[in-house]
Amino acid sequence: MSVQLAGRLAARADEPLGDRCPMDRALQLVGNRTSLLLLREVFYGVSRFDALVKRVGVTEASAAQRLRELVEIGVLAKEPYKEPGQRTRYAYVLTEAGHDLLPVVLALVQWGARHTDGPAPRMRHADCGKPISVALHCAADHDVVEDDVIVG
Amino acid sequence: MSVQLAGRLAARADEPLGDRCPMDRALQLVGNRTSLLLLREVFYGVSRFDALVKRVGVTEASAAQRLRELVEIGVLAKEPYKEPGQRTRYAYVLTEAGHDLLPVVLALVQWGARHTDGPAPRMRHADCGKPISVALHCAADHDVVEDDVIVG
Repeated sequence: MSVQLAGRLAARADEPLGDRCPMDRALQLVGNRTSLLLLREVFYGVSRFDALVKRVGVTEASAAQRLRELVEIGVLAKEPYKEPGQRTRYAYVLTEAGHDLLPVVLALVQWGARHTDGPAPRMRHADCGKPISVALHCAADHDVVEDDVIVG
Repeated sequence: MSVQLAGRLAARADEPLGDRCPMDRALQLVGNRTSLLLLREVFYGVSRFDALVKRVGVTEASAAQRLRELVEIGVLAKEPYKEPGQRTRYAYVLTEAGHDLLPVVLALVQWGARHTDGPAPRMRHADCGKPISVALHCAADHDVVEDDVIVG
């Protein structure tokens, strides 16, 4: 059982795919664990630097560096806010490219809940209460199995 | 717009989620770039050590270490094979837990194809030729938007 490669991806022989692979390019941008934990928190509605640092459990320096990268690559945007008597601070919000990472984040949640030891939160639909899964969807609504996926 | 947290995940205040988060546990096991590139190749039907090394473009030592880890955590299994006149070698195949990583791999492919510069292979269904996407699926077949996802 395997995914089928077509086109240029299939033509390659023994040389590395490297940057021709969009998964590799994605990992180079957002594949860092701290980056993904920060994005998880922003998906969960956390936006302020101090709260992000606490919830992810990293140093301020590490969070600042990763947040700067995520802003640079266009996954997060900084929005200024100001509380009375304080200097201007910034909140982090997802851009469109950031929101598009939801399937990545939830696919990892789903796999971790199924295949690792520890609390296994379930995903469900607010409207109807039924389970939500991250799955392959065919535009013609067919069921999709691994062997029937062509990438190319 | 944000995903809703429920139950124990919502109850937490400012302390890190840490290992209570299945995404973090997943990243600790398979979140390494080399590991995911190796898994990508196994999904694409590559199984032998030498071919995996070449296609991923890492050193033999690095590939060997990551493959050993992936076997240890139960994502890959080693199958012995023997060619005439050669010593026994091992091929790497996905276990059930490994196959369950397909949405993670393809969600990264999908995001990278949309939001990074470079070749953007498309995913399509072998049976009907229509596009395949990695998407949130409600068991009651409702369309799912980010705000309507409850994790908890």
